[in-house]
Amino acid sequence: MENRKEITAGIIIIGNEVLSGRTKDINTSTLAKWLNSLGIEVKEVRVIPDIESTIIETVNHLRKEFTYVFTTGGIGPTHDDITAESISKAFNIEYNFHKEAYSILEKYYKPGEFNDGRQKMSKMPTSANLILNPTSGAPGFFVENVFCLPGVPSILQSMIGGLNNVLIGGDPILNLTISLRTVESEIAKSITEIQNKNKDVEIGSYPFFKAGRLGVSIVLRTSNKSKLDACYKEILNYIKLKGIEILEEV
Amino acid sequence: MENRKEITAGIIIIGNEVLSGRTKDINTSTLAKWLNSLGIEVKEVRVIPDIESTIIETVNHLRKEFTYVFTTGGIGPTHDDITAESISKAFNIEYNFHKEAYSILEKYYKPGEFNDGRQKMSKMPTSANLILNPTSGAPGFFVENVFCLPGVPSILQSMIGGLNNVLIGGDPILNLTISLRTVESEIAKSITEIQNKNKDVEIGSYPFFKAGRLGVSIVLRTSNKSKLDACYKEILNYIKLKGIEILEEV
Repeated sequence: MENRKEITAGIIIIGNEVLSGRTKDINTSTLAKWLNSLGIEVKEVRVIPDIESTIIETVNHLRKEFTYVFTTGGIGPTHDDITAESISKAFNIEYNFHKEAYSILEKYYKPGEFNDGRQKMSKMPTSANLILNPTSGAPGFFVENVFCLPGVPSILQSMIGGLNNVLIGGDPILNLTISLRTVESEIAKSITEIQNKNKDVEIGSYPFFKAGRLGVSIVLRTSNKSKLDACYKEILNYIKLKGIEILEEV
Repeated sequence: MENRKEITAGIIIIGNEVLSGRTKDINTSTLAKWLNSLGIEVKEVRVIPDIESTIIETVNHLRKEFTYVFTTGGIGPTHDDITAESISKAFNIEYNFHKEAYSILEKYYKPGEFNDGRQKMSKMPTSANLILNPTSGAPGFFVENVFCLPGVPSILQSMIGGLNNVLIGGDPILNLTISLRTVESEIAKSITEIQNKNKDVEIGSYPFFKAGRLGVSIVLRTSNKSKLDACYKEILNYIKLKGIEILEEV
């Protein structure tokens, strides 16, 4: 990528359900696409278990490494939801009922339904800022550069838009994918040469099987539109010269 | 989990395509389910970019932390496939043509088709052990406790069975999922009590939306069959007592 001040993010997926293989994580993809559109580049993802010391250590490490850190999972009402308390300890802030969150949830539920489990969802670092939840009431929160979101994908998806004006991003990362009917080893040498001539564009090469046939997706990424165009043109010339079939361009 | 010598694994997903959100990682789920069946517990997953120093550092850190480490991605023929060379450096072993791998690939391709890109796929730590690839020829490899597999899911899936007799596992991790028509906050208190009485069973609680309605999956995990049965019975009694609808048991 080109030489500009990078705005970066790390993602921490908290949850035994991903580590056990029971659940496939799709929140990484949602967060990464959204962050790219804001000019924020995801540099690392870690999937970790519901263990307090691991959460604290991972959060405290990554929040120093990256501009932003996002956690998903572990902010519900059950015994295995320990993210909010762990974040409180990571930042050394009191873990207790958050006034605004408590008030939101109290209004959200019918009288008599605001039970212990639901009240627990308003416990978090008391000085945290809230991330509103238009789907199921219980808010996420952020402390400094660490943003805590729920694990249920549809709820997470409904909440992230609320952060567009909170995060300070960079130039959006542009990307372009050309899918070809070829195999990587046929084009490897030429793509390497094109990469060497276009240092500011990250060129990725990804083989795939589709409908029983092999193909390769060439992905170009950069925040510089003119460099993207120049690199794309060069690749297109090479493809035409070689007579390689283009399956799709996105 | 109960107090036995744990056999653990870490997974390293190498690839900008997952960090950019373009590709959803499904290899973690494949590897985790397979490892569970061998009694090996996945403790951490890291998704990292195609950067040599990051790969070396992550591999060298995790191979000391866990019994086994699995990497996926970056062993193809293109310029962004740098896993094999990075692993060589991590272990300080010569990176060069691997005799057996070269011979396998030479036979796999038709005369004249074994070009530079394809030859590159036989470059790896020269003393590595191979992991055969029945799908597309190019083998994976392992050095000590670090196993390097390709990123394409169908190819990875076809290769892991070849490691069943190489890995030394423990008692298979049993699991049982009961999906309920309820919400987490209704059952949180009772499930916490049951968890406290069944310390050797890991009880997870995962909310879901399906066909527009809320539900909760209760997941029990342990390698001890009788403790699993006892915990399951206790949860079943509670569910019946409360009149909660069971949607599915797996």
